[in-house]
Amino acid sequence: MGPHPAVAAIRLAVRRVLNDILDDHGRAPGRPAHEPPPSPLVLVACSGGADSMALASALAFEAPRLGVRAGGVTVDHGLQADSDLRAAEVASRLRELGLQPVESVAVTVGRDGGPEAAARDARYAALDAAADRHGAAAVLLGHTRDDQAETVLLGLARGSGIRSLSGMAAVSGADGRYRRPFLRLDRQTARKACMVQSLPVWDDPHNADPAYTRSRLRHEGLPALEKALGKGVVEALARTAQLSRDDADALDAWAGRAEAGVRDADGRLECAALHDLPPAVRRRVLRRAAIEAGAPAGSLFARHIEEVDRLITGWRGQGAINLPGRVVARRQGGRLVIRQG
Amino acid sequence: MGPHPAVAAIRLAVRRVLNDILDDHGRAPGRPAHEPPPSPLVLVACSGGADSMALASALAFEAPRLGVRAGGVTVDHGLQADSDLRAAEVASRLRELGLQPVESVAVTVGRDGGPEAAARDARYAALDAAADRHGAAAVLLGHTRDDQAETVLLGLARGSGIRSLSGMAAVSGADGRYRRPFLRLDRQTARKACMVQSLPVWDDPHNADPAYTRSRLRHEGLPALEKALGKGVVEALARTAQLSRDDADALDAWAGRAEAGVRDADGRLECAALHDLPPAVRRRVLRRAAIEAGAPAGSLFARHIEEVDRLITGWRGQGAINLPGRVVARRQGGRLVIRQG
Repeated sequence: MGPHPAVAAIRLAVRRVLNDILDDHGRAPGRPAHEPPPSPLVLVACSGGADSMALASALAFEAPRLGVRAGGVTVDHGLQADSDLRAAEVASRLRELGLQPVESVAVTVGRDGGPEAAARDARYAALDAAADRHGAAAVLLGHTRDDQAETVLLGLARGSGIRSLSGMAAVSGADGRYRRPFLRLDRQTARKACMVQSLPVWDDPHNADPAYTRSRLRHEGLPALEKALGKGVVEALARTAQLSRDDADALDAWAGRAEAGVRDADGRLECAALHDLPPAVRRRVLRRAAIEAGAPAGSLFARHIEEVDRLITGWRGQGAINLPGRVVARRQGGRLVIRQG
Repeated sequence: MGPHPAVAAIRLAVRRVLNDILDDHGRAPGRPAHEPPPSPLVLVACSGGADSMALASALAFEAPRLGVRAGGVTVDHGLQADSDLRAAEVASRLRELGLQPVESVAVTVGRDGGPEAAARDARYAALDAAADRHGAAAVLLGHTRDDQAETVLLGLARGSGIRSLSGMAAVSGADGRYRRPFLRLDRQTARKACMVQSLPVWDDPHNADPAYTRSRLRHEGLPALEKALGKGVVEALARTAQLSRDDADALDAWAGRAEAGVRDADGRLECAALHDLPPAVRRRVLRRAAIEAGAPAGSLFARHIEEVDRLITGWRGQGAINLPGRVVARRQGGRLVIRQG
């Protein structure tokens, strides 16, 4: 008798990703035959919640079968009472699964960008450091299809275009360090896999705290949307993420190529050439130029770019446009000048 | 003292669109100076609800000032008891506003594609016929920013990519006949404009009937999403529509150009050339080829195209892929063959 379908599903998802990692790292061609490839180390980032505990259990099962070393990291954000004890408990559960090395890392969460962004920044910095310290080939993250759907809706609320609809990537970070094996798996499967394996899981009270946007979305927004639109919404949102990501990549590549063609001999942007580009490409060229001039990407919104675009498509002698980062865009004799100052 | 801000807003929106229509029709260059341009006729499609009554009132006010003739059409869908009386009442209100000609047109709603799609098809057929009959330059539709947000969410639920996120166009139909002046205006403004002008409005019970997806979305889905994500959601969704439309247009254009480059001398699709395209462009080329071979666009989903795409990117000798409309895609010796039968 094989494993429970939920356990089979999480293991298959992890096995696929481990094979990808081996293709990228352990099975590099050109290595002398007498020298065995070093066994790569894969870490799992684990909060102790159902998603990442399921991920840790699947990694512990699959890694030895594929000649991969498996370790784990849990991050103590220090945001709740006794969070250090909690982190120590998660670390000991990871060791019980057979993972080695296992680390609990305490971080200090700042305030930049709001509580969720600050916690995320601190967490990834700690994971990066742990991966460097141990020479890990990859860090696995437990984000599920449900997390992806929530991320798409959060991006939708920004109204800043398809890049913000593209959610989380299956592979991200420097050298593709972060991998998300569960991005096509639903949260229910991860939870079920923990249950049938008798893995204790920890429900982070933050996940149910209505003070957090994501929590409100999870417990109220998405269920209401499912009630109105049907049960397929989460899958549709996740598919939208993938399609949007590919579309955004293609358009960014186009804008990159187009940019050379709209600059004059002195590298200045020519309004007439910009005018002839499709709006979607022109806006991306303008955005790139603004960022190159020093505008912080995160503060540059669609409405800023729209206003700069009107210097090209709706020219009626308007004055300079102020952009974030003290960047100014103005039209000067058929050229668009974007610079700081 | 000027008009109430809500009334000023609806009039401004209509004035802009009438000026666009005059640019396209009434002010055609090259006309002999001694021959006065014919006064173009603009019709408003009016259900009697707040959005289209506000639109009718703004058209009645602005049209004579711009030398435009203004008429109205109301469609009796025959779906509710006494709908004919209701339509006659709406027509008489339009006449009271000074519109001329005014018509009430009865239609028979079929069943194709569900009740909402069938009613929409019947309505547009009737509006097209009325516009032809009266030689109208344009038909104004009362869709607001809120309708647009709902349309984006309905598209999102299909999970079929950014084209379905692009909502309704400001200008659509043959020769750009249909215009939506209120697409950037919120429903509340239209309602307020009716109130302050003492215009009686009719609340279609369908709009509150939870049997209709759009109604559930309006009364439950969107409010819950606003509660989770904040009040800016409707505006963000509407902006997403515009950005997605431009992006989808640019990528469709790219795919159109790319198609020629991936066909061999006999017009067959070359797998190696397809493989080199960005995924977003390749999928669009495949979709175009499937539709050209006879697959109905409306039944061709993202998952179909994904499966065909795997003949290119994940080739392991798999068999033919069945697509809607009895279209079959198969790989034959480095060529992708998509045809009916």
